[in-house]
Amino acid sequence: MTDVKSSIKTAKSKSRTLTSLDTDAKNRALESMAQALEANKEKILRANAEDLRIAEEEGLSNVMLKRLKVTEDKIDVMVAGIRDVISLKDPVGETMSAMDLDDGLTLYQISCPIGMIGVIFESRPDVVPQIMSLCLKSGNGVVFKGGKEATNSNRALFDILTEAVDGLVPKEVFVMIETREDVNALLDLDEYIDLLIPRGSNEFVKFIQSNTRIPVLGHAAGICHVYVDSEADMDKAFKTALDSKVQYPAVCNAAETLLVHKDVAERFLPIIAKGYIDNDVEIRCDPESMRIIGGKEASDEDWDTEYNDYIISVKVVDSLADAVDFINSHGSHHTDMIVTENRKAAMVFANAVDSADVFINASTRFADGFRFGKGAEVGISTNKIHSRGPVGMEGLMIYKYVLIGDGHVVKDYVGKDAKQFKHTNVDSKLEMF
Amino acid sequence: MTDVKSSIKTAKSKSRTLTSLDTDAKNRALESMAQALEANKEKILRANAEDLRIAEEEGLSNVMLKRLKVTEDKIDVMVAGIRDVISLKDPVGETMSAMDLDDGLTLYQISCPIGMIGVIFESRPDVVPQIMSLCLKSGNGVVFKGGKEATNSNRALFDILTEAVDGLVPKEVFVMIETREDVNALLDLDEYIDLLIPRGSNEFVKFIQSNTRIPVLGHAAGICHVYVDSEADMDKAFKTALDSKVQYPAVCNAAETLLVHKDVAERFLPIIAKGYIDNDVEIRCDPESMRIIGGKEASDEDWDTEYNDYIISVKVVDSLADAVDFINSHGSHHTDMIVTENRKAAMVFANAVDSADVFINASTRFADGFRFGKGAEVGISTNKIHSRGPVGMEGLMIYKYVLIGDGHVVKDYVGKDAKQFKHTNVDSKLEMF
Repeated sequence: MTDVKSSIKTAKSKSRTLTSLDTDAKNRALESMAQALEANKEKILRANAEDLRIAEEEGLSNVMLKRLKVTEDKIDVMVAGIRDVISLKDPVGETMSAMDLDDGLTLYQISCPIGMIGVIFESRPDVVPQIMSLCLKSGNGVVFKGGKEATNSNRALFDILTEAVDGLVPKEVFVMIETREDVNALLDLDEYIDLLIPRGSNEFVKFIQSNTRIPVLGHAAGICHVYVDSEADMDKAFKTALDSKVQYPAVCNAAETLLVHKDVAERFLPIIAKGYIDNDVEIRCDPESMRIIGGKEASDEDWDTEYNDYIISVKVVDSLADAVDFINSHGSHHTDMIVTENRKAAMVFANAVDSADVFINASTRFADGFRFGKGAEVGISTNKIHSRGPVGMEGLMIYKYVLIGDGHVVKDYVGKDAKQFKHTNVDSKLEMF
Repeated sequence: MTDVKSSIKTAKSKSRTLTSLDTDAKNRALESMAQALEANKEKILRANAEDLRIAEEEGLSNVMLKRLKVTEDKIDVMVAGIRDVISLKDPVGETMSAMDLDDGLTLYQISCPIGMIGVIFESRPDVVPQIMSLCLKSGNGVVFKGGKEATNSNRALFDILTEAVDGLVPKEVFVMIETREDVNALLDLDEYIDLLIPRGSNEFVKFIQSNTRIPVLGHAAGICHVYVDSEADMDKAFKTALDSKVQYPAVCNAAETLLVHKDVAERFLPIIAKGYIDNDVEIRCDPESMRIIGGKEASDEDWDTEYNDYIISVKVVDSLADAVDFINSHGSHHTDMIVTENRKAAMVFANAVDSADVFINASTRFADGFRFGKGAEVGISTNKIHSRGPVGMEGLMIYKYVLIGDGHVVKDYVGKDAKQFKHTNVDSKLEMF
């Protein structure tokens, strides 16, 4: 415990020096990380084989085993991911705005790293190179806590990567902790850790959110809706409603509930029901949709359930307003879509649905950092502050205000004969070196 | 308790309709608020007189009484504040970025209100019109909890203002709660409240931060430093070090500690000591500064204390790096300044000091929303996510992603023959109505 605290304290302190690193230095360290992974494939695979052996002995599920397994291909993807981060623009030290408060007194808003990021994750060892490269490029320190099942893989990756950056950047800014007790210590370290990113199951994220005062970036559930409006194009409705459910049901941006306007229910429900059934999707109906297509009745619980599976709940609604209310009450504020040809209805939906992503005539499955053009994804957030929706490297940034004067004092700007502020926006950039 | 929860639940639900209000409608409601305050001065002053009478009976301190007292002039300031908010640009529905993911598939990042803001404050009834006008303009609902000592004043202001907006905007989005039990209920309502803004003493803010899972915008302490570098201009150092301490010591952006580089300590300390003594400032010294200017020795505790008073702790440091380390260890990450003519030293300081505001040759007292040109101030934040430093209306905003397609599905973008994303930034704006 004391050890963890002191290494995180050191990491936090050293992380402040990352702000001053120039882009070339960071990119050299990143390239060294990529090369080290390539040079140490054997070592990584050996460590992973040991994790897999133990996991099989302990009867881990196939899904978990699949996530845990590292292959040569997967290492190539990790390497490509690091090189992608090299190609990303350095986000540190940008002038976001500048204003002359008065002659010779200029205020700059400068982008800077958040500081120390805590990443708590399950199974997937590829989180280590991905997050470590994003943090390095954005000037953040990071403390990792992986799942017990991946201990050997994570440790091998972490050791290879930190050794690779040694001498290029201060490697003390990267910390890995391993025991359950260490996690509890971590959650208490709001003095040193500025942001937590949990990656794992809903229960896992909820546990983290409920047990720390550190801000958490993430989402606990992904209960996404498809709403087919009275003025929907039936073909677009069919394609997007199907894609949103069956393209990959196991993830947070897959649809869980289909809402259909009563005016098109008789026409649309039989068509989409056939599409779902052809794809082995179980349909759970409200009374009105059951009247039209038959099948199984949904329970109250269904409307608040993230199936992550080939199951969908279906409901007929009386109006756009009812659809919006239903989504705001039962959704998880993640991603919800409307199918309509009516622009006004689309904008009412986009304004009124209180979700990170509101889509019009496009599958919910597009809610993803890569598809959104962000390059590497830090996570998907349903928070209402800082970052929302798919979050790229920008989610690891904040800003500071740098005010440059020439001996300016506030006394001159108060009372009788007070000098007046100019508050003129200016275009100048502050070179932070 | 149940009542509070249900009125806040209603407010949250109704607050979602504020996003669709056009700017004129919001400005008409704001003007109606301004006129209602002007028309009801007597009523406000009467309610305030009652609060003052009780407060005097209960022996409230003079400082508290001063904050509590409403005068006709103060009402004029409230009215002017509301009219300032009318003149602010409507922050809702702006296109922050736009990108063509592919032909006919465009992603817009649109600014939107956070949702429901909780404001917990002590003494100053002028918080009610200030925050209510900012929230209305930015499309947020708000629940107020004021101090017991201002119950009558707050209630009078709140009733006048909500009556003034009735029929123009849904008045249910504004809620005021009054009992201690209601506060505890409020802190538990993370389901409905998206952001808390506590305004009051450090202990008060710390209490709020420690007792809720709702994100808190604010700062608990303001331990600000002035560092006089070896290449400081002595005249600028004198002026800014004095202004930072004595211009108004009772506030968070006043300096508490003066650090002086050893190379200029012998020259500078006697000058500034005279300035402080002439202004009745008590000086608490480290051994080296005591050797030079004599006086009282500082205890360990002094370096971590926000005096908010005519007291300053003084320390001689060996280097710029030592000053930076000292500030990062003992400061509150609020506002810290360097006095130097050396640009490189200034930039090292600006990069390495981990504070919301880092100032060069300008008094710490400039750290303020009005002086920063933000118009109305929501608060000053030492958070590392969302908003940092003086926060204006932008601190009440977040964004959502609106994706507009034409029946686009993810299936087409995966596997063999996958369509490629274009990810082209575009200039188009989305009209949200």
